[in-house]
Amino acid sequence: MQRLSINQITVREWGLAEAVEGLARHGVRGIGVWPEKVEELGLERSAALLRAHDLRVSSVCRAGFFTVQQDPSRVSDANRRAIEITQAVGGDCLYIVCGPLDEDNDLAGARDRALDGLAAMAAEAEAAGVALALEPLHPMMTADRCVIVTLAQALDMVDAVSSPAVGIAVDSYNVWWDPQLPSSLERAGARIISYQICDWLVPQPHPVFGRGIPGDGVIDLAGLTRQVDAVGYQGPIEVEIFNEDVWSRDPDEVISLIRDRFPSVS
Amino acid sequence: MQRLSINQITVREWGLAEAVEGLARHGVRGIGVWPEKVEELGLERSAALLRAHDLRVSSVCRAGFFTVQQDPSRVSDANRRAIEITQAVGGDCLYIVCGPLDEDNDLAGARDRALDGLAAMAAEAEAAGVALALEPLHPMMTADRCVIVTLAQALDMVDAVSSPAVGIAVDSYNVWWDPQLPSSLERAGARIISYQICDWLVPQPHPVFGRGIPGDGVIDLAGLTRQVDAVGYQGPIEVEIFNEDVWSRDPDEVISLIRDRFPSVS
Repeated sequence: MQRLSINQITVREWGLAEAVEGLARHGVRGIGVWPEKVEELGLERSAALLRAHDLRVSSVCRAGFFTVQQDPSRVSDANRRAIEITQAVGGDCLYIVCGPLDEDNDLAGARDRALDGLAAMAAEAEAAGVALALEPLHPMMTADRCVIVTLAQALDMVDAVSSPAVGIAVDSYNVWWDPQLPSSLERAGARIISYQICDWLVPQPHPVFGRGIPGDGVIDLAGLTRQVDAVGYQGPIEVEIFNEDVWSRDPDEVISLIRDRFPSVS
Repeated sequence: MQRLSINQITVREWGLAEAVEGLARHGVRGIGVWPEKVEELGLERSAALLRAHDLRVSSVCRAGFFTVQQDPSRVSDANRRAIEITQAVGGDCLYIVCGPLDEDNDLAGARDRALDGLAAMAAEAEAAGVALALEPLHPMMTADRCVIVTLAQALDMVDAVSSPAVGIAVDSYNVWWDPQLPSSLERAGARIISYQICDWLVPQPHPVFGRGIPGDGVIDLAGLTRQVDAVGYQGPIEVEIFNEDVWSRDPDEVISLIRDRFPSVS
């Protein structure tokens, strides 16, 4: 239970203050935060509140989104601000999502831009002492969200950028299907700097907003956690759920349910 | 245009007789057929009709579906019948879909069963002179449809089964996102025995029944065809579309539109 963290999007109805107090009330020791929610409360107040409740910020979600409209070799204001926020709240890492596919439908080009964008951000993150967690998303999101879709591909990027500030985020929903998962995790090893879980529901209610509470779907989450741990990961296990049905429930009930399920899925 | 084939599911409203006559009327020389539609008309009548119109049967879709409920080392009646049908209509190949994930949620086990099931079918297909086209589906279908989700994984299976009767089916919708696509196509080479195209729409109307008419989505289909051809494929280019909206249109209009688009996407 010490490893349980909950991403605040899971209790989306709450602002950051309510989420921090709610998680603390349930004895949850970690939280993943969103820049928008931090800005809403104000950065200094957010940082102070997180410190006051002694919550570990296991992730800041998210930045990146390198597109053809901007020069990827220059860090955008939004991405620079996300680095600042991560530094100020003492986040373990800042999630980086690369994409989407641009209007030119040039998939190879979008992937090249992602590498340039990541490299540019890495230099600034390194200077700020912030870790970037490159997250491959599920291949079904290639067109409209993220062109980096496998762990192997993300690891190739991490190798190419070669910065101590850049690691990998493993999210069960995005990687569970991958036939190369065991070998990619082995290869990733200590470069795994964040681990998120949620479940894959059948039938799937929605590709993005249909993620399941751990235990409600088909992913062998306990098995995945064993694999991630076996290659050296010892950090938080962060539950992150985008789901309209979950969002419509009482957040306290959702947190209780996640706590109840946690021992059997971690 | 000589390479254009259209899978009959694209004009789902029509029975096989209407589809054969419709395609011939539009000067389309190839068709992919479904066992259910063949049985509906009768196997002998179907075979005679296809011959009478001199249509090339570029595929029979589909068989496989190895599950825990049956011993995968024994070929099921449905799979045996699909081989018979393919032989009788002179089909270039019979598509094999492996899955879904079974109720035990054992992904590795389901993949092992798929290999056993394919090997058992390969022996009978070889004896019947029928080619099996192993089709990796998109990873988003891992749970409810097919546990084989990348070309590399399918090629590993083809290598393991090592039967001259087993090759690979490349379907644009299932493989376009894959960062390993160029290397997997290179590796596949002459083992590619079928090629299907459709487009990926943004936003995606439905994971299974939301495929787009070539040219309506984001896949670089002309580029993919060049890659497939470059590794030695010279066969039909079969357009296969599952889409409720397309199915609600006049099939003659759909065929005309596909014919119009074909030069720019092939």
